[in-house]
Amino acid sequence: MQEPFSVALLGCGTVGAGVAQLLMQQVDRLGNRAGRALQLKHVLVRDPNKVRDVSIPHNIVTTDLNLILRDSSVDVVVELVGGTTWARDAVIQSLKAGKHVVTANKALLAQHGTEIFRQAHESNRIVAFEASVAGGIPIISALTQGLAANEIQSIQGILNGTSNYILTAMTEHGHDYQTALKEAQQLGFAESDPTLDVDGSDAAHKLAILARLAFRVDAASDQMFLSGIQELTPLDIRLAAELGYVFKLIAEARRINQRLSLQVSPTLVRRGTPLADIGGANNAVQIRGDAVGDVFLSGAGAGMMPTASAVVSDIIDLAVGRAQHTFDSMRMWDTDSTLSIA
Amino acid sequence: MQEPFSVALLGCGTVGAGVAQLLMQQVDRLGNRAGRALQLKHVLVRDPNKVRDVSIPHNIVTTDLNLILRDSSVDVVVELVGGTTWARDAVIQSLKAGKHVVTANKALLAQHGTEIFRQAHESNRIVAFEASVAGGIPIISALTQGLAANEIQSIQGILNGTSNYILTAMTEHGHDYQTALKEAQQLGFAESDPTLDVDGSDAAHKLAILARLAFRVDAASDQMFLSGIQELTPLDIRLAAELGYVFKLIAEARRINQRLSLQVSPTLVRRGTPLADIGGANNAVQIRGDAVGDVFLSGAGAGMMPTASAVVSDIIDLAVGRAQHTFDSMRMWDTDSTLSIA
Repeated sequence: MQEPFSVALLGCGTVGAGVAQLLMQQVDRLGNRAGRALQLKHVLVRDPNKVRDVSIPHNIVTTDLNLILRDSSVDVVVELVGGTTWARDAVIQSLKAGKHVVTANKALLAQHGTEIFRQAHESNRIVAFEASVAGGIPIISALTQGLAANEIQSIQGILNGTSNYILTAMTEHGHDYQTALKEAQQLGFAESDPTLDVDGSDAAHKLAILARLAFRVDAASDQMFLSGIQELTPLDIRLAAELGYVFKLIAEARRINQRLSLQVSPTLVRRGTPLADIGGANNAVQIRGDAVGDVFLSGAGAGMMPTASAVVSDIIDLAVGRAQHTFDSMRMWDTDSTLSIA
Repeated sequence: MQEPFSVALLGCGTVGAGVAQLLMQQVDRLGNRAGRALQLKHVLVRDPNKVRDVSIPHNIVTTDLNLILRDSSVDVVVELVGGTTWARDAVIQSLKAGKHVVTANKALLAQHGTEIFRQAHESNRIVAFEASVAGGIPIISALTQGLAANEIQSIQGILNGTSNYILTAMTEHGHDYQTALKEAQQLGFAESDPTLDVDGSDAAHKLAILARLAFRVDAASDQMFLSGIQELTPLDIRLAAELGYVFKLIAEARRINQRLSLQVSPTLVRRGTPLADIGGANNAVQIRGDAVGDVFLSGAGAGMMPTASAVVSDIIDLAVGRAQHTFDSMRMWDTDSTLSIA
């Protein structure tokens, strides 16, 4: 048995609490999978007195990032605070301090990916981000490993659970957009300010990450055609249904000769096809590769434990030494694609 | 750039031709992904004069396994001959000769898995087998890596494309079993002797492999409840449809307290659920984990290029050094589960 692999959590909201719970309650299981103990060493929070979904021992709670950066026993910093300002600085500093980074922050990677991946490369450290796209669905490892023999032709996904929940409610119950949004907010599927979810920005962030992996392009979301679900009416949805279609907010990257088309928009999807059947807050991704044909993955795209599942699988990958090989072979910091964004 | 990674193919049938084609035609792509050149060094065949789906240079064709075993430059032997007698000996000898092994042979792993994985462990070599279950769908890497944080509760799969093709034809066209089988044979979706596909044995072999990964049990197919599709009648299928169900040949492993239930049987699946929509020769797997919930994967379960995609992804994993960590952390040779097979 090797030394324990030490983890510092930045942020202890919903997903952070899920990660802490897995690390504290599944010690034997995770230790077996990782070949060494996974030790939760620090949990950084803004307010140590706040009541949380999980009980964290007081002696590992801190408000001081420098304490974590200076602790040479910390192997990996898990960034779950969200946002792109403080989080960017914390991730860059963690890499410079010699820590690996695991993050679920799609906005951060979409906006500052090249800088962050370059810093990781320079610091000889890894950034792992399975949880940043489609929650617990292992889409990042599918693209980087399982489908590595393929040239990817296209990716089509339902990558935002909130908008899919709203569209499902509009389709199944005939609700208008405002009624469906209120229902989603009451049930916790939409935030009080749902803008980034319903206008396509969140899906665009995730599409930018998938496009970097599959096509080696650095696509900021402002290079995509972006359209949200706010303008859809019950009449649109009824007419679609009469023709045998449903509206889904589809994020799509498609290779067309030497150009790459990237867009997020409400799209008519034929009933009886896999993407049409994805209901509620679920996510799904369909990948077309030149050898494998179409591969389809679906599951919970968000939520405490599904996202924690992806974060902890990244920690295990780092602890066993696998993530290093994947990160090196993907050259995430280098986006010299021959494709131009259409 | 490191030394080339040298590959010897045993067998050059449909899948072997697909693997040879990828290795010979996608030199740059695969070299980039693997961080080193993948070199096709030997292709072992029974009859060197047979016309094949791919043109192999004469100087790398051989009929002599010993030539491959003695070639110290060969890093990995890819077993695609099928069967469980010659293939078992060839795999054991390859491991003893210090070669890694990639195989798509589910019957071999189901019957001789423990022996083969032990030999690999003793020889400090790897056996990789993504292609042995569900063709190009990255189900093995999902279980070993993407979902590594989870305790798996159940696996349900459509793992045999031939029987799914027949059931789909019976459901959609009202054919009886014999008519649907003949159609499948004419179109190349069923072999002239379809027994292992339609009686559930092939699905049971694949389920045994998934059960070893997810539950650490050594389940021979004779420990499973096994029932095929041969007795299903058009009346069964019509009555199911009237109640809102379709028949699918479902392979299922389910944890119930400290017992593991394993079975392959024609199962009523409710229309509108993901497994019900898998038509034709496709495969699908639904995995339930305690953290992630349900994750669903589907795609082509067999065929030349989809299966070659999985074989070559295993070769890349070996070449970059990732497969070693996975194999070590899964301890495939060791099946001391606390679960008993119900």
